[in-house]
Amino acid sequence: MTRTISHIGIAVKDLDKSVELFSALLGEKPDHTERVEDQKVNSAMFTFGDTAIELLAATAPDSAIAKFVEKRGEGMHHVSFVVDDIVRELDRLKKAGFQLIDETPRKGADNYLVAFIHPKSANGVLIEISQKAK
Amino acid sequence: MTRTISHIGIAVKDLDKSVELFSALLGEKPDHTERVEDQKVNSAMFTFGDTAIELLAATAPDSAIAKFVEKRGEGMHHVSFVVDDIVRELDRLKKAGFQLIDETPRKGADNYLVAFIHPKSANGVLIEISQKAK
Repeated sequence: MTRTISHIGIAVKDLDKSVELFSALLGEKPDHTERVEDQKVNSAMFTFGDTAIELLAATAPDSAIAKFVEKRGEGMHHVSFVVDDIVRELDRLKKAGFQLIDETPRKGADNYLVAFIHPKSANGVLIEISQKAK
Repeated sequence: MTRTISHIGIAVKDLDKSVELFSALLGEKPDHTERVEDQKVNSAMFTFGDTAIELLAATAPDSAIAKFVEKRGEGMHHVSFVVDDIVRELDRLKKAGFQLIDETPRKGADNYLVAFIHPKSANGVLIEISQKAK
């Protein structure tokens, strides 16, 4: 299955402040910002070729990003791969013994279907698998 | 300045075990492995287009990777950007107020010059800047 690294998700407290910081750091403005209701986050994407830096700030205290920041502080949260067929990929990973957080895909940012693999399965790395919704 | 995300560094305890795990997860073998004496690490790269996943295991207890794993456990360690001119980029970042770990570039993996920006400057994210050595 073809695969690209679509983005690295970074959990932040204040999206506006972090957009300003990362714009200075990376020398460019975000090319896409979005509110993702299902995940209770606001996101800002800085794209470099195939791969982007995604800043993520919680919009509610029960957002996974709010809990992450509270527990670990701001920082790298997940790495996301795009695949051709997310259902087939989740099936492959499950059969290979990986622990899925999402057995079936749900709606992510930018019209993608997404599912997460538990960091316990992957050396502490939260892995997102995604596929462009048809 | 043109810029690509060259890799995401992941700190692991046992490189052989993690190479096996990530080979199963990503559906491919690493395309490059290397011992980087200066940084006291063994690394394995899984490349997807412009961007790679780099697994990093310490070769000595005083390696930065050993200290990271001891403090935070295995997981995402840094994100690395390739630029055209690392000296000019470090100068730009310093003038913009970012705290540099390396004021001058040092030798990294795969014949690159590298320098790190302190995570305190970047929302808890350790940023590596690199340039192919000439």
